[in-house]
Amino acid sequence: MVPTILVQYLLLVCLVCFPATEARVRHYRWKVKWEYKSPDCYKKLIITVNGRTPGPTIVAEEGDTILVELEDNLLTENLAIHWHGIRQIGTPWFDGAEGVTQCPILPGETFKYRFVVDRAGTYVYHAHYGMQRVAGLYGLIRVSPRHPEPFSYDHDRSIILNDWYHKSTSEQAIGLSSIPFVWVGEPQSLLIQGKGMFDCSKVTELGVCNTSNPECSPHVQTVVPGQTYRLRIASLTSLSALSFQIEGHDMTVVEADGNYVEPFVVQNLFIYSGETYSVLVKADQDPSRNYWISTNVVTRNRTTPTGLAIFNYYPNHPRRSPPTSPPPAPAWDDVESRLKQSFAIKAHQGHIIKPPPTSDRVIVFLNTQNTINGYRLWSVNNVSFNLPLTPYLIALKKNITDAFDQSPPPDGYDFLNYDIYSVANNSNAKSSNGIYSLQFNTTVDIILQNANTMNKNNSETHPWHLHGHNFWVLGYGKGKFDMYNDPRKYNLVNPIMKNTVAMHPYGWTALRFRADNPGAWAFHCHIEYHFYMGMGVVFEEGIERVGNLPSSIMGCGQTNTFHRH
Amino acid sequence: MVPTILVQYLLLVCLVCFPATEARVRHYRWKVKWEYKSPDCYKKLIITVNGRTPGPTIVAEEGDTILVELEDNLLTENLAIHWHGIRQIGTPWFDGAEGVTQCPILPGETFKYRFVVDRAGTYVYHAHYGMQRVAGLYGLIRVSPRHPEPFSYDHDRSIILNDWYHKSTSEQAIGLSSIPFVWVGEPQSLLIQGKGMFDCSKVTELGVCNTSNPECSPHVQTVVPGQTYRLRIASLTSLSALSFQIEGHDMTVVEADGNYVEPFVVQNLFIYSGETYSVLVKADQDPSRNYWISTNVVTRNRTTPTGLAIFNYYPNHPRRSPPTSPPPAPAWDDVESRLKQSFAIKAHQGHIIKPPPTSDRVIVFLNTQNTINGYRLWSVNNVSFNLPLTPYLIALKKNITDAFDQSPPPDGYDFLNYDIYSVANNSNAKSSNGIYSLQFNTTVDIILQNANTMNKNNSETHPWHLHGHNFWVLGYGKGKFDMYNDPRKYNLVNPIMKNTVAMHPYGWTALRFRADNPGAWAFHCHIEYHFYMGMGVVFEEGIERVGNLPSSIMGCGQTNTFHRH
Repeated sequence: MVPTILVQYLLLVCLVCFPATEARVRHYRWKVKWEYKSPDCYKKLIITVNGRTPGPTIVAEEGDTILVELEDNLLTENLAIHWHGIRQIGTPWFDGAEGVTQCPILPGETFKYRFVVDRAGTYVYHAHYGMQRVAGLYGLIRVSPRHPEPFSYDHDRSIILNDWYHKSTSEQAIGLSSIPFVWVGEPQSLLIQGKGMFDCSKVTELGVCNTSNPECSPHVQTVVPGQTYRLRIASLTSLSALSFQIEGHDMTVVEADGNYVEPFVVQNLFIYSGETYSVLVKADQDPSRNYWISTNVVTRNRTTPTGLAIFNYYPNHPRRSPPTSPPPAPAWDDVESRLKQSFAIKAHQGHIIKPPPTSDRVIVFLNTQNTINGYRLWSVNNVSFNLPLTPYLIALKKNITDAFDQSPPPDGYDFLNYDIYSVANNSNAKSSNGIYSLQFNTTVDIILQNANTMNKNNSETHPWHLHGHNFWVLGYGKGKFDMYNDPRKYNLVNPIMKNTVAMHPYGWTALRFRADNPGAWAFHCHIEYHFYMGMGVVFEEGIERVGNLPSSIMGCGQTNTFHRH
Repeated sequence: MVPTILVQYLLLVCLVCFPATEARVRHYRWKVKWEYKSPDCYKKLIITVNGRTPGPTIVAEEGDTILVELEDNLLTENLAIHWHGIRQIGTPWFDGAEGVTQCPILPGETFKYRFVVDRAGTYVYHAHYGMQRVAGLYGLIRVSPRHPEPFSYDHDRSIILNDWYHKSTSEQAIGLSSIPFVWVGEPQSLLIQGKGMFDCSKVTELGVCNTSNPECSPHVQTVVPGQTYRLRIASLTSLSALSFQIEGHDMTVVEADGNYVEPFVVQNLFIYSGETYSVLVKADQDPSRNYWISTNVVTRNRTTPTGLAIFNYYPNHPRRSPPTSPPPAPAWDDVESRLKQSFAIKAHQGHIIKPPPTSDRVIVFLNTQNTINGYRLWSVNNVSFNLPLTPYLIALKKNITDAFDQSPPPDGYDFLNYDIYSVANNSNAKSSNGIYSLQFNTTVDIILQNANTMNKNNSETHPWHLHGHNFWVLGYGKGKFDMYNDPRKYNLVNPIMKNTVAMHPYGWTALRFRADNPGAWAFHCHIEYHFYMGMGVVFEEGIERVGNLPSSIMGCGQTNTFHRH
């Protein structure tokens, strides 16, 4: 007979060690197609994944391999999906940034994305081709840790926020690239977990808008009184910066872009496109009623109604409207409150990854609006970015030197003379697909410098997203970055690491990252319209260390030349 | 001094011989993009070539080489253009049928179509990818002869007819491929040379419809009294069969699909999608006024208003409306009149190309509507056609045997038992991408057999178009084709050659062609919606004689494997 104590020991071994060692392959099969849907009660053609928007949530443990077999059923349109926040270590070709890391996926074809989710946290995925994200192709990636987290909760929930337009993606894109420029305007609705509510009385056409359509019944988060919820909140807005509230409930911020945050409490969470947060919420209010979950546009003079969902205390009916009005929205132009939140986000005490104390290179990115050949564009250091036909990763690895402009864009601007508070002429602006080469394993500082747009007394908020890396957020400031004094104020003690960060109006944001991930990586404003209008750059590092490129990423530009590997 | 007689002789040599020997390269650079246009006063996004729809007319002499550098600026959509009526002898890879002869052209890329227009005549071009033709990408090809024609005229003019929908191409395509099936319905307008006139009082939305928009001012054909006009008429309708009239003027039909016709006179010209005709019109009426050019839907119970243009007698003002009402439209369901025209079209006496007296193979194509897995489709011999990912031409030439179903579809149907007059069950219908292999240099007969649709007492008219060949039209008949008796009635004396021919309701049409053009060639109903729903087949012949494929047609399916040549 086996002694009981040994059996117990073996059981213990199984329980403790097994989950920590066995990484799994999570296999998804997705069909992407155009379908009529009414996310905010207004019927329009949108892009769905397996019939849904938001698409399926990817659920995995850190170390797992994700395999997504993606079938493009978009009739005549190509496709690419970016796994936002996943660093793609060793698989830079599966980052999903069309024109940077792969050719687009053709209609009828099935593309296999295969990558490791190496870090626990909350991430997202979305289309990264043309402006397809606007059409509704987005979803969540939830990677659970194999080790204890520095906080506890009873339930794990998630919500994706989005803004929503009734014009088609093509109509919007064509307006932006027309002379005269036609701006998309403010969104018609805000969606919480893919559901919003448009005022159908504004629509005269029959059969187009129907507020009793179940597709636009409000999202419901049901909670049990007394329990604590981890709520993962992601924003994939096309344009809008948002505030997020749960009526009468405090939220404790504990995670940002997959990194643990030294906890702090908010009533309003400000969230920019491309960001994710986890907040802890305790269902500690009067349990006899429901509460509003609400989201509002900030940073732009809002015309879009509040987005609403229901925080449902079990056993109240989930559709029962809260007896109160939704909480008031924060003032749209209250920059100070948003800056305050930016400053509040620090690395969790027990999870600090120290940044290198100095950097090897500092690049300052002046963000401006320009007119080039009559087109309204965004520029970085007076260069408006456009994508080449042959993706950078392939061109670099295969040494195709005529695939893109070989002269790199500038590392700075005319610091002395440029007035960030006035409408600049920027007559020397140009379009280019030149990129930044970073020396492998060096430390790079990026200073995002905001300025006035082409409208007087106007400076916008831009969330910048870096592919393939996390960066440390070293600091934020107002006005023009002072190359000599501002770095002394950097937080080198407990800076948060993120993949997306806001640059505030007339301000600057300082980032540091290690160029330690061989590949070609986009860094761009996550406002879909701004990236489309040229607000981005590409970094390359350690290309000689990139492995053999899969043939599946070929098929465009000069890539037809290459054999399968 | 050079004797005058010698100079005259040399001049004569130059005039006579030079044009006949010097084939030219006609070089076009086209940008294809989405633009807002109002062809019938209703503003929508359409696909333009160099800002225009119809696109530029290709003008050439027989033997010339056409080089079109085509830049796809459609944002996220691919593209392919078919040169309809051009046989592509020696260049089957430039036929432009996506999935058959090439991979689609990607956004941002420039594709070079290069082919010889070997025969004089009137041809067209149009998108041949998804249902993009519906979006407005079409135009005319006018190839003039190097030898005298069997008729004379003072001026050469052309007109393209089209039907026009206000829903977007995507909306239409998604309806057709939905369960339940959503039919596109009848068109909103008929366009003459890209211009129509919608009744804007039916549109409530502001700024969408404007009858004073110059983009929809009626097309004007200005004529000088007493002169004779060759009018080239092409139809590129998505759905509609049309009648075409010039008020008070006879039209003498002299050319059909690039082949000379034994002249006959009509007041109404019936024209099916994909057909071209030349008619001679003499400006021999009262010159003090203008006349209506009019077109109407036939074969379907019309709800679309008459399409109108102005036949303007110089020096009357071109915008002056004719004092009379447009001529009455022919009865939409008068099959006899249309059959009569079909029978009237014979080869011109002096230009008869005799068909081979017998054929090596007879293929009967039963045309039916079916439901397969809940989808409404069209089938040929119970097989609904779909395109493979790897174009046939490449798969065949490179011997990729898993690129498409290697079992050929049937050469016939259950002749004895199938009732073409009833709604058939067709429960054994299937979808396939199998194709017909034709022995090189053999003679093939095709019998197009019509039947009842899925609606009682309904049989439609279908214009079938063959790529890469002209065929002889041997006969038309009513009811079920009689394999033993009907061939005896074939016209083997002076049959017209065409590339597109109508199959009339509950009738059959017999064609003969020589399988003498190495390549893979689509043969399909030219109604865009019907081909999209599977109404087509592909023939292959003499693949071993096809030259090296250009790498520019690669990039999709399994074609990434191949090096450039």
